This record gives sequence, structure tokens and C-alpha cells, in this order.
Amino acid sequence: MIVTDYSIGILQYIPFFYVIWSDDLLSASEISVVQKVIELDTSLNVDEKHQLRRWLKRDTPPFDDEIKNWKQTIANSKVRLIESDTYPLSSLSQRLVNSENLNDHLKHIEVHLGIQPNHYNHLFDVEVVHEKTSSEYDANILDEILKGEHARVVDRFRSFLDKPDFSWQVLRNKEDFRNRILQQVQLLGEAGYGAMAYPPEYGGTGDMPAYAAIFEHLMFVDGSLAVKFGVQFGLFGGSIQKLGTKKHHDEYLTDAGTTKLLGCFAMTETGHGSNVRGIKTTATYEKSSDSIIIHTPGKNDNKEYIGNAIHSKIATVFAQLIVNGKNEGVHAILVPLRNENHEELEGVSVKDNGYKLGLNGVDNGKIWFNNVKVPRENLLNKYGEIQEDGTYASSIKNPNKRFFTMLGTLVGGRICVARGALGGSKMALSIAVKYALNRRQFNDNVKVQEDLIMDYPTHQLRLTPAIAGAYVYHFTLEEMMKRYSDYSQPDKRKIETQVAGLKSIITWFANETIQECREACGGKGYLLENRIADLKGDVDIFTTFEGDNTVLLQLAAKGILSDFRAEFNSAGFASVLKLLQTQLSDKLTAINPLYSNKVDAKHLYNPKFHRHAFDYRTRRLTYTLAMRIRNYIKKGIPSYQAFLKVQTHLLALGKAYSVELAYNIFCDHYQQIEDLKYRALLEKVGCLYALDQINKDAKWFLEQGYIGGTKSKAIRQRVERLSTELRPHIEVLVDGFGIPEHCLTAPITK
Amino acid sequence: MIVTDYSIGILQYIPFFYVIWSDDLLSASEISVVQKVIELDTSLNVDEKHQLRRWLKRDTPPFDDEIKNWKQTIANSKVRLIESDTYPLSSLSQRLVNSENLNDHLKHIEVHLGIQPNHYNHLFDVEVVHEKTSSEYDANILDEILKGEHARVVDRFRSFLDKPDFSWQVLRNKEDFRNRILQQVQLLGEAGYGAMAYPPEYGGTGDMPAYAAIFEHLMFVDGSLAVKFGVQFGLFGGSIQKLGTKKHHDEYLTDAGTTKLLGCFAMTETGHGSNVRGIKTTATYEKSSDSIIIHTPGKNDNKEYIGNAIHSKIATVFAQLIVNGKNEGVHAILVPLRNENHEELEGVSVKDNGYKLGLNGVDNGKIWFNNVKVPRENLLNKYGEIQEDGTYASSIKNPNKRFFTMLGTLVGGRICVARGALGGSKMALSIAVKYALNRRQFNDNVKVQEDLIMDYPTHQLRLTPAIAGAYVYHFTLEEMMKRYSDYSQPDKRKIETQVAGLKSIITWFANETIQECREACGGKGYLLENRIADLKGDVDIFTTFEGDNTVLLQLAAKGILSDFRAEFNSAGFASVLKLLQTQLSDKLTAINPLYSNKVDAKHLYNPKFHRHAFDYRTRRLTYTLAMRIRNYIKKGIPSYQAFLKVQTHLLALGKAYSVELAYNIFCDHYQQIEDLKYRALLEKVGCLYALDQINKDAKWFLEQGYIGGTKSKAIRQRVERLSTELRPHIEVLVDGFGIPEHCLTAPITK
Ligand SMILES: Cc1cc2nc3c(=O)[nH]c(=O)nc-3n(C[C@H](O)[C@H](O)[C@H](O)COP(=O)(O)OP(=O)(O)OC[C@H]3O[C@@H](n4cnc5c(N)ncnc54)[C@H](O)[C@@H]3O)c2cc1C
Ligand SMILES: Cc1cc2nc3c(=O)[nH]c(=O)nc-3n(C[C@H](O)[C@H](O)[C@H](O)COP(=O)(O)OP(=O)(O)OC[C@H]3O[C@@H](n4cnc5c(N)ncnc54)[C@H](O)[C@@H]3O)c2cc1C
Repeated sequence: MIVTDYSIGILQYIPFFYVIWSDDLLSASEISVVQKVIELDTSLNVDEKHQLRRWLKRDTPPFDDEIKNWKQTIANSKVRLIESDTYPLSSLSQRLVNSENLNDHLKHIEVHLGIQPNHYNHLFDVEVVHEKTSSEYDANILDEILKGEHARVVDRFRSFLDKPDFSWQVLRNKEDFRNRILQQVQLLGEAGYGAMAYPPEYGGTGDMPAYAAIFEHLMFVDGSLAVKFGVQFGLFGGSIQKLGTKKHHDEYLTDAGTTKLLGCFAMTETGHGSNVRGIKTTATYEKSSDSIIIHTPGKNDNKEYIGNAIHSKIATVFAQLIVNGKNEGVHAILVPLRNENHEELEGVSVKDNGYKLGLNGVDNGKIWFNNVKVPRENLLNKYGEIQEDGTYASSIKNPNKRFFTMLGTLVGGRICVARGALGGSKMALSIAVKYALNRRQFNDNVKVQEDLIMDYPTHQLRLTPAIAGAYVYHFTLEEMMKRYSDYSQPDKRKIETQVAGLKSIITWFANETIQECREACGGKGYLLENRIADLKGDVDIFTTFEGDNTVLLQLAAKGILSDFRAEFNSAGFASVLKLLQTQLSDKLTAINPLYSNKVDAKHLYNPKFHRHAFDYRTRRLTYTLAMRIRNYIKKGIPSYQAFLKVQTHLLALGKAYSVELAYNIFCDHYQQIEDLKYRALLEKVGCLYALDQINKDAKWFLEQGYIGGTKSKAIRQRVERLSTELRPHIEVLVDGFGIPEHCLTAPITK
Repeated sequence: MIVTDYSIGILQYIPFFYVIWSDDLLSASEISVVQKVIELDTSLNVDEKHQLRRWLKRDTPPFDDEIKNWKQTIANSKVRLIESDTYPLSSLSQRLVNSENLNDHLKHIEVHLGIQPNHYNHLFDVEVVHEKTSSEYDANILDEILKGEHARVVDRFRSFLDKPDFSWQVLRNKEDFRNRILQQVQLLGEAGYGAMAYPPEYGGTGDMPAYAAIFEHLMFVDGSLAVKFGVQFGLFGGSIQKLGTKKHHDEYLTDAGTTKLLGCFAMTETGHGSNVRGIKTTATYEKSSDSIIIHTPGKNDNKEYIGNAIHSKIATVFAQLIVNGKNEGVHAILVPLRNENHEELEGVSVKDNGYKLGLNGVDNGKIWFNNVKVPRENLLNKYGEIQEDGTYASSIKNPNKRFFTMLGTLVGGRICVARGALGGSKMALSIAVKYALNRRQFNDNVKVQEDLIMDYPTHQLRLTPAIAGAYVYHFTLEEMMKRYSDYSQPDKRKIETQVAGLKSIITWFANETIQECREACGGKGYLLENRIADLKGDVDIFTTFEGDNTVLLQLAAKGILSDFRAEFNSAGFASVLKLLQTQLSDKLTAINPLYSNKVDAKHLYNPKFHRHAFDYRTRRLTYTLAMRIRNYIKKGIPSYQAFLKVQTHLLALGKAYSVELAYNIFCDHYQQIEDLKYRALLEKVGCLYALDQINKDAKWFLEQGYIGGTKSKAIRQRVERLSTELRPHIEVLVDGFGIPEHCLTAPITK
């Protein structure tokens, strides 16, 4: 029999029970939240408590007619739900029973179950005028958290960008575009921003992490600016700083930092991109003249894609160094390209690379050298030098190790590329979210206004996990840059490997996110004025340059396999194989069925579960990969080939490891936030990231029996639900990225 | 004990056994292929047969040392593997035993196990000079199969495009670019290609399927050309053809077909894109002047993104038709925009939409109408008209039905959009594959030449399943256009629903494919000259225009739910709900564990398995979706809201159904190919598509228990293996797309 005439005590709970049961929102731990509240609620008598508890049983849920009755009861009362209330559901209850105060117990349920208006605003009549987002959180505080130690630098930099010189413009002609970007780079150089990562003697502050933070901001101005800035100060200046010695620093570094000397970084050749070791440009030491002769030997051996090539006076050229007829491997040499009048020097020939998918404000070019002579001193000689007597010397005897040590010093650039990609996604997400909070399309015929597209569950799912990703990767990259810049830790092998993986997953993440944002804005997203189009074209190549993702992930995986002790030998993988001989014990305990089918919210939301899952995946992938390789080797397959056979497995491991690393860093960071309210928000954000990642790879976890089908479904539902729970805070979350108003020029954000 | 001195009989099998066991290539059905061969091979004596059979047991495989011995034996023989042999492995065996003839039994194994050089070329010393691809198949024959009935038209059209007028150029300035594209459209119109789908009386051949085939080819010239062509002849001309009556045809259709009259299709407004029913432009009948007054009432009610807007003389304008004060719903009216001198007519105001992510050769614009008067006759009155007495009349009484019938006539355009996206992916794939067959990067230190990137398993996996997809979708769209153009079937509701789903999955497929191709070409893919960049920018918007994918998939799912009898009522979904009441019996039989863990090749490669899996998924998703909706309804949740709550489920169903439909159509087609060799090739292509699709959604199949973990892994391995097996034919497969040499201008394809 169905009761229709409810006591006051029961009545106040009716809206909650209605929301809970109509949407099936309860797992065991969530039931216990409600149960506890009922226990403690002194406004209820024993019978009422008993009744309410009866309605909390998952195995004997209330009848559909009972639930309909609840709805009817509320509808008849004529009490309306007001979305802009701080606790809309509790306040509805309050008005339903004509009480003077909010029942704190109900508030407790509302908060702890994460019940949000968009879970239920269709269930009751909703006041039409309501806030589009909640003011529970303050974007400035989030911004402060993200800026961290760089707050002062970043704030100053943001205001610096508030000039017409940095306003975004459509410049279709590459010469015009490049000139404007050049001027911007010069302005930044003159203001000291270019040299930031250099030592104070050369105009800098030696603060690479702060440099990375401002670098990210350049993406808000223009992708071309970020890249040209990175080439001039990071690659060109950075190569002098990291590969050169004091004489080079003294001669070039200050001018590089101010842009008085424009330079480029010429490593890639038409014939050799990913395989840098295979480059063909020669740098032959000529004893008679005590100079080095730079030469492009063959048809595809010219440098290509070199950023800043058209504007530069000089280049850091990577070439095979040949001393006394012996090839000492790839080294970097400073080679002047043009004279004061900007005419090409003898033997140098530069050609424009033409129009590109994006970054048309960057002057990429091809460079040929025809026996170009430079003094011996132009060799950047930190890791290898030609001595006065004309012999070669290096502190690193193993040529492979020398090569990787040289490349390793450039890893900072890779972090910046990931950081730039991240900036691009933050920008796209900010635009898409702001548009989705204005754009209405379709409605229930009964309503006057159409629905905000941000209120569509699909739209929430398209944007919210990506926002979570942006938060996670922000802290990840901050931390990696900190570790990379920590001079007390000279051995950077582990960090290099980690950065190889992170650069890959983050640049792919950025491309997917920007694409999703474009589509989420419909036709408006396609117009150049709304900025997403440019981001898409610009960030695209981040997956390729500073290391192609597919190649980098293999590098990362080999590092992981050898527990980061990989010797510098990419062909024979000797050290990896040596380690494989010893390490192969599968220490992973079997997953018990109780665990693999645990679907309770408390468990699913617990960072321990996420960490365990990620750790399990990395270790399992490592073990099975090692086993496979070993089996091939045992059958006589050469190691190079054995590694090819497991290529897809290597990629999977590289990705899995990187996701785990990112999440662990994120957790370590948010757990230190003192303000509990914001810590809780970021915990939820991290939880969404983690569950979304597990969901995306659920196939693998299911195959391993790590999760069962029920758990997999529950995880997917939780991803949707968390996206909905974060809906009221979505604008605050993107505002927390701190993109300055003067950069956020897209008309659709207004 | 390990034998090292093998008899001739055994020796000839050693290379095969070595390949098989070093790579673990055998499932039960594959073992039985080998077993049968051994049985039949009269060159073997009883002992030899016995020995070989012993080496075929999966539970007691040969020892690693045995396998190494095999390798040693071959190595010591000094016999080399020659990749360019037709049957390289059999021929190796032949030379190993100094025989005069190839052993046909061995050939049988080689063919039936799909053993390809890239499965084993690392195992033996390979002659360095070898063919990059096999000549087993002829691209022209594949091309013929794809062209089908349109061979004559298509061939003629391909040569027609071989003119400087259609050469690809970089035009960054939109005015220049638009002018060139306009000229191209005019050339095509004058040559009769624009009118192709119109009746012969108006210059056409009434052949919509052939029109779609040539439309796809325009993507090889320039995406902007395809889109502007589509707007002029398909949308503008098509609206007159499909929504107008004889008087309109007589007056306009011929001129539309020749481009003597340029027109546009003005449906979307700034405020209303996906929700066409919500458009606000009014078309009010004024009896006194017997005319219709077109008016833009409010700020966001102007038309926007309208293609051809800058060049047009006239527009088909969609507006709310108001007759005698009553809103009769959305209708289309021909509204002149400009006079002979191309000046805007009074009350008309057009503004350029500016630069876009792509398609900058298309002149998209915004249009405002300020009480613009047109004669009553300008109403395209096939489905609704204003009679001479000034009253409204329509043969379709239900306004919803009328609206959807009108929109339905435009579904042909949606097929063309998918077809264009497909053309874009074919082009990108052709470029990426040709580059990958020239580009070398990295090698085993022992080799002189670096490896072709096409030989990397990851690269094969990136490109080959996409090629399979392109084949499957080609036949799908051919067939859908045929059904759509079949005038003997006037009720197009089912086809409309199907096209909504297919357009979504195919345009997404195209975007992902083009992106993958860009990345697969590294830096070269980023240069405009290599064409992928433009394809990326152009095809991007195909996911949005002619119906946003997310919106279309929901439409498709609702159609599927109601078994295509959905009444035309998108808000209340009354008919869907009605059907849900009755239909909810889950007819799906439980999957038995034997089936869900069957990993034999014969089973996995069997189209019956694929079809069963797809059918199961569609039916299960339909059933669970219906159950969920019904449960919400039962609890009193309004139907509009209930549908929102299951949005992601709707998308999943829409996609699943579309994949099933595509694969079924493909199977029906290739099974009719008479040449068994090509039929087998296409069966393999289809198999790769199907397994790749199942693999991509393996999470779902695992959750349902439809496949077990072992099967899921086996499917993934088969996707990789098929990609490798198709490696020798990959160039033929892309050449089969038939993209003319004069369109394939990317320097990296040379
Ligand atoms: C806009 C732009 C700016 C640039 N700026 C600079 C610059 O300033 N200075 C500079 O020196 N360089 C620069 N580059 C070059 C850039 O670093 C290279 O493009 C990049 O390293 C990739 O090399 P690649 O283009 O030769 O691709 P490739 O190495 O040829 O790779 C092509 C494809 O093959 C795949 N592949 C390659 N090897 C393997 C393997 N072993 N296994 C599996 N797959 C493989 C890759 O995944 C990729 O998809 C720039 C490039 C661009 C486009
Ligand atoms: C280059 C270009 C050319 C065009 N040419 C023409 C033309 O010639 N003639 C013409 O009439 N129109 C044209 N259009 C308009 C095009 O058809 C529309 O852009 C398209 O219909 C989408 O509408 P919208 O842009 O308003 O997006 P919206 O409808 O506003 O959609 C925005 C986002 O919201 C999401 N969304 C909307 N509703 C829902 C829902 N119910 N559930 C979940 N998500 C939802 C969508 O998925 C999308 O991501 C063109 C557009 C472009 C960009």
C-alpha cells in the first residue's frame, strides 16, 4: 500500500529520495551517508526513521508508483526549486515543510552525494532565471594555486602582454605575419623575458620553471609567437648555454637573450628527422687553417624546417664532426649565415619552407652549406672538443653516451613543447566552455528558453574530463621542470625518459582536446576569429617536433624496461637485454574477485584505487613486454627485430607509465593544498581524470581480469556523473587557468 | 635431443616451421592447414611426417634450442631469401634443398597462412634490393570495382580535371581563392557536371549516384571546390528540384545547373543551427500585394555561414511561413539578393564571414532581410503552398511530418558530405602510404639502408585499418545513394535515419584518418604543398555542417529505437515511447563460454562472426536503452528529460548500428565480385575493418561477456597481423582509389 499523506519529518526527505531513486544514484557507501544522517536527525521520530530506512534498500527499492507519488506531492505543493540557492534541494525541502531553517542533515546529504541541480532540475519545476554557474569557488584562488611560485612573474607578464603589439590579428600573408611575430619576439627579448632561463651574468634570472610558465602564456597570444620565441631563446640560446662553454656564453648569450643576435637551431635534415644520429651534414676539421668546414654532402642532406631560418644571422648546426679522418659523431657548431646587410654568406643558401598547416608566423626554412669555413672555436665544446693540437677530446668516452648526453641537455625544450600544447588546450577549453554557457539549442517544447548546450550530458562529457586533464598535466609539467632544473641532480636520464613519454601523451591530449572544442562550438568554432582554428593548426605539429611521439614513446618504454639504467645504445639495446635476464619475476599478486567487482563509490573515488590500477598496469605491461622480448631473443631473433615485433606493446607501456606518473605527481601536489575546500575540488578533478583514464583503457583492465564487467560499467557511469557534478563549477575551473581577458579575444566568449 | 642434420624432406619445411614458431603464428585452424599439407605431401616419408607433426603441437612446442638450430641450419646453407620472389619462403625452401621446382604444398601454406616477408625478413638474410610492394594485384582492377557502374562517367571526369584550371594552388588571400574556385565551379557547370542529378529536361542525366561519385573527386582538386559545387548544384539547385514544383524547375533549374544563376541555401541562423525548427526569420504572406515578406526579426536571427553568399544572385531562404496570422512552420522561399550589377537589393544585407579554419575558397556570409518582398510564387511549394485565395494548403497535414519531409529531401546532400569526407581520407591515405614507401628512418646497425617506415608495425597499424575503412565506406555510400535515388521507394524515413548515422561515423573516421596521415608524414605532412594540411582544415567542418554529428546520432538512435517508424515528433518522442511499451523482450540468447573464448583464426576471420557480433551489439544496446528509458518514464520523468539522461547511450547505439550497416553492405557487395582473387583480397580488407571495429569497442563486448579476455587479445593480435599481411599490397590498395596523377600533386608522393 502506498502512503500519500506524509508526515513533516518524512516530507522533508521526499525531494532527496525522489532524486536518489529516480536516477539510481546510490552505491553502498552513499547509502550509508544517508543512513547516518537519518540516525542523527533528531527531527525524525522512530517510525519515520524506520520508514526512511526501508526506502534505502537497494534490493527492495521503492515501487515506481511510490516514486511517482513523491513527485506528485512535491508538484501539488507548488513549491519551486530555485537553482541559484546555495543548497537548492535542501532549501526546497525547507520550503516544502514551511520550516524556518535549513535542515543541516539534508545539507550534508546534498554535499556528500554531490547532488547537483543538473541531476534533478528536470524533476521539479525550476525557476527560469538562475545562475549559469555556482559561485562556490573563486577562480582567482585556483589561479593562485596553478601559478604557485611563479605568481609574481606570471602576473607581471600578463600585464606586459596587454599592449596592442600583442593583440591577435589575422595575417594571411606569411611575410606580414612573420614580421609581426618577429617584432613581438624582439619586444619580449628587450624586456628580459627571453633570457629568463639564462644565468644573471647574461641578463637572466636562471629560472627555467618561471620561463616555462611564461612560455605557456605565449600560446594565448599566438602559437607562432610561442614557437619563434622557443626557437630563439630556448633552442638557439639554449644550445649555446647548454652545449657551449664560457667563451660562447660571453660572446653570444646576452645578445641571444635580447634578440640582438637572431639565431636558429639546425638539427633536422630533409633525409633525417627522428633519426638524428643519421644526419649527414659534415663538420670537418681542417688543421691547416685551424677551422671547421661545414658541408651538405648530398641531395637530402640539407637542413629543413629550421625555425627562424629567414631572420637569423647565425645557426647552431648539428653535424658529423670529423677530426683527423675520424667521425666523432654528432656535434653542434655555430655557423654564421648572413652578414650585417642580411645577405647570405658565401656557401650558405637558405630557402623558405613555404606555407604550413599552422605557425605561418614562423619562418621555417631549408639550409644548404657548401664548404663553409668557421673557426675551430665555433664548436660548442662542452662535451667534446678539438684541442689546440688538432686532436679530438671528450670527457665522455662512449660516443653513444656522448650523443645522448648532448641531446639530453635539450630536454627542457620538450617540456616547453608539452607546456605550450597544454596552454593551447586551456585556451580552447576556456572558449568552448564560455560559449557553451551562452549557447542555447533545442528545448523541451514546454519551456520558453532553449537549453544551454553546457547542460547536455554529452557536452559535459566532451569537455569536463579534458579540463581535469589540463589540471593534472599542469602540475605534472611544473614538477618535471622543477626536477629538470634541479642542478643538485646531475643525472637526468630518468627525467629524460619521463619527459619523452609525457611530451607524447600531453601533445596528443592537446590535439584531441582542441578538436573536441572546435566541434563543441559548432560553426562558430570554425571561424578564425574564435581562435580555436589557429590553435588547431599550430598545436598539430607539437606531436611531431622536438621528437615524434611514436618514436619518443618507444624511447620511454625502453627506459622503463631497463629501470632507467638503459645504456646509451638505441640499436642493440644491450643493457635492456641484460636487465631482462635478471628482472623477470612477476611480483603482481592476483586480483581477487571481490576487488575486481567492487563498485562502491567510496572505493571508486579513492585515489588509492586509481594509483593501484595505474601501478598494476605499468608493472604488468613491463613484465609481459620483457617476457615477449626474451622469448624472441631465445629463439635467435636479433634484438633490433625483437623490439620491432613488440612496438605496439612498447607504445602501450610508454603511455601507461606516463599517465601513472602524471597522476601521482598531481596527487602529491593537491594533497598539499591547505584550503580544504579547494583540496576537495582538486581531488574530484583528479578523480575524474583517473577514472576517465581507466575507462579509456578499460579493455585492457578487463582482459587482465583487473576489473570485471560490472566495475567497468560503474567506472563509466562515474565519469559521467563526476562530469555532471562539476558542471556548476565549470566556468570557475576554466577561469582558474588565468587566461587574461586581453588574450581571450574570441567573440563567442563574450 | 636435438637433431641438427635434417633429411631433405624435413629440411624444406624448416624455414616454415622457423617462421611459424618464432612468431607464434598458429591457431588450431592454421595448424590444420599445415597438417593437411603434410598429409598430402608425397615427398615426405612416414617418419618425416611423424616428425613434422610432432613439431605442430601447441601444448608441446619445439624447444627454443631446436628453433635456434633451424635458424643456424638455414644460415649455414648460405641460401638467401629474396623478397621479390612471388613465393619468397617457398622459393627459399626450394633452393635450400636444391630442388628444381617449387613444392606446391609449401606454396599452399605460404598463401593460406598469409605469411608475408615482413613476418620474417629479419629472420634470414634478405637480399637488399627488393620490391617495395607486390605486383600480385592490379590497382586498375580494384579501381574498376570501386567505380562500378560509373566507370565511364568517372573516367571522363578524371580527364576533364586534367587542365591547368584545376591545378592545385596556394591562395592565401580569400578573394583570390574564391575567384579561382568560382571559375572552377563555372567550368564544371558549363560542362554539364553540375546538372548531372537533375532531370534531362534541365540539362542533367538524373543520375544522382554518378553525381556523388564525381563529387568525391572534387576533393582531390580542392575541398573548397567540392563544397562550393555542393552548395550551388546540390543545396541551392537541389532545393529547387526537391522542394519546388514545375514552374520553379522551368524558371530556375537549367540556369542553376550551368551556373548562369548563382544561388545559395540559407537555412542556418546565428541563433539556430542544429535546431532548424527554431529559426526565427519570418516569411509573412501579405494578401494585399499577393507577396511574401521576408524579415529578420532580431539580433541573432540573421542567416549565417551561408556558402556562396557573396557570389549569389538569389537564395533559397528557410523561414517561418505565416499566412493569415498563423505560423505554418518552416518553408523555403526563393529570395533574390542582388541585381544584374551585383548590388544588394533593397532590404538585403550580406556580410562576409571572414577567414575560416579551412574552405577559404568558399564565400560564406551572413544575410539580413529587412522586410524584403517577393511574389507568392517564390514559395517552393511542393509540400505546402499559399493558394490563390490566400489560404495555406498542404498535402501533409501534420506540421511536424511536413517539416521532416522537407528536410528529408535534402538527405542526398548528407550522403555527399560523407562521400566528400571519404574522398579526403582516400587522398590523405594515398599520400601517407606513398611517402611511407619512400621514407626511411632508423635501422639495425648492421644494415646499410635504413628501414622503410612502412615496415614498422606501428606504421602499418596506423594506416592499414584506415584503408580498410575507406573501402568499406566506399561501398556503403554507393549503396546508400542508390537506395536514396530509387524512386520506386518513396518512403525514405529509414534511409534518412541510416544516413544520419553513417554521415557521423564517416566524417569522424575521415578526420581521424587525415590526422593520422598528417602525423605519419612527420614534418613533411605539415607543409601545405603536401596537401594533407588543407584536407585537415577542409574536412574538419564536415562533422558539423549538414547536421552536427552529435545531434545526428541521437536522431539515428531514435529511429532505430522505434524500428524506423518514429513519428515526426522530436520533442515528445511519443511514437518511440509507444513502441517501447510493447517491444521490450530481450531476444538475445546468452553467449556460451566456448564461443566467447573461441580464438581460432577460422572463426575470427569469418564474416559470420563479425556480423553476429555487430548484430548482437546493436540489439543489446537497443534493448538496454529502451529499458532505461522506460524505467525513467515509469518514475514520472518527462520523456524529453529521459532521453537526455541516456544521451551517451543513444550515441553508442547510433554508432554501433552504423558500423553494422556499413559492414553488412560491404559484405553483400564484395561477395558478388566474380574474380575470386579480388574477392579474397576484399574479404581480408573487410575482415580487418570488422576486427578493428570490434577491437575498438572491445571494452563493451568484454563487459557483456560476449568475448572473454583471451579472445579480446586474439582479436587485437589479428588486427596487427592482418595489417602486416596486407603490407605488400598497400600501395595497390591506395592506388585502387584511383586518384588521378594530376591531382596527386604532393611532392612527397613522387
Ligand atoms: C613547423 C616545424 C618546425 C620545426 N623546427 C625545427 C627546428 O627549428 N630545428 C630543427 O632541427 N628541426 C625542426 N623541425 C623538424 C622536426 O623536429 C622533425 O620534423 C621531427 O623530428 C620529425 O622528423 P621527420 O619530419 O623527418 O619525420 P620522420 O622521422 O621521417 O618520421 C615520419 C613518420 O615515421 C614514423 N617513424 C619514424 N621512425 C619510426 C620508428 N622507428 N618506429 C615507428 N615509426 C617511426 C614517425 O612516427 C612519423 O610518423 C621542425 C619541423 C616542423 C614541421
Ligand atoms: C563552413 C560552413 C559552411 C556552412 N554552409 C551552410 C550553408 O550553406 N547553408 C546553411 O544553411 N548553413 C550552413 N552552415 C551552417 C551549419 O549547417 C551549422 O553550423 C550546423 O548546422 C551546426 O549548427 P551550429 O553551428 O549553430 O551549432 P549548434 O547547433 O549551436 O551546436 C553547437 C554544439 O552543441 C552541440 N549540441 C547542440 N544540440 C545538442 C543536443 N541536443 N545534444 C547534445 N549536443 C548538442 C553540438 O554537438 C555542437 O557541438 C555552414 C557552416 C559552416 C561552418
